[in-house]
Amino acid sequence: MEKAIQRANRPAEQFYLDDLQVGQRFASGTYLMEEARIREFAAEYDPQAFHLDKRAAEASVFRGLAASGWHTAAVAMRLLVTGGLPFANGIIGLGGEVAWPRPTRPGDVLHVESEIVEITPSRSKQHQGIVTVRGTMLNQDKEAVYVLTAKLLVFRRPL
Amino acid sequence: MEKAIQRANRPAEQFYLDDLQVGQRFASGTYLMEEARIREFAAEYDPQAFHLDKRAAEASVFRGLAASGWHTAAVAMRLLVTGGLPFANGIIGLGGEVAWPRPTRPGDVLHVESEIVEITPSRSKQHQGIVTVRGTMLNQDKEAVYVLTAKLLVFRRPL
Repeated sequence: MEKAIQRANRPAEQFYLDDLQVGQRFASGTYLMEEARIREFAAEYDPQAFHLDKRAAEASVFRGLAASGWHTAAVAMRLLVTGGLPFANGIIGLGGEVAWPRPTRPGDVLHVESEIVEITPSRSKQHQGIVTVRGTMLNQDKEAVYVLTAKLLVFRRPL
Repeated sequence: MEKAIQRANRPAEQFYLDDLQVGQRFASGTYLMEEARIREFAAEYDPQAFHLDKRAAEASVFRGLAASGWHTAAVAMRLLVTGGLPFANGIIGLGGEVAWPRPTRPGDVLHVESEIVEITPSRSKQHQGIVTVRGTMLNQDKEAVYVLTAKLLVFRRPL
């Protein structure tokens, strides 16, 4: 199973709809979640005490400083776009489901493992389809911190 | 119906689980989506040409520069946290569904309208519950650009 995982950072490999199959797996590179960036992101987009202040976070349901879930989601997208999910036409999401089973912490080293779970060719547009991908972001202890199940627009290989 | 909407920026009103009911509605303030921030966010978290370069974006499925969907999601969170959804214990998301019915563009003026769609008191923990909120982010033309249906952890009023 491990062998079947497509490793990131092979720019030559670019996948079109034609190349994908259910069960196919991909893995991203890694990303270090820095405390300063956790605070900066939170200050701009999610200014709540448990994302900004260590003491307040310790008294909160998070029991320690935690990244905004949307920061975690943004980092996951970065990992997918920079080799984690090498779709030739890019990663174009229509929507999906998100879950944060546990907090992302300062110092966490994160990566995303993805699997193709469904492929639906378009009936009206022959050159495209919807591919459902489930991406699981894991920390250095292999704990899932974020799960994204997304519907992506994917194109066929140009003729 | 319009009268029932709880307007943002009334810091005195802080809602606990006890205060919420299905059908209750809230509205956020507004946020101007600036082109420079669209590019900056994309450069850091979603470096794809259609979020970075106007010409490339015009040739893409977006037909013009579009914000990363995760940037749109982050801005929605900011609008909710800064008065759009005045929960006393903050906005603590467990997960949910996201959809981007159309792109967010430079210059868009965005706000979020939210509605309580389900309230599930915890059976094991008497002081908390899960509240499902559907937030719709609209642009200045009242077009939905983002829909978030989130499960939030909400606490009862302290005794």
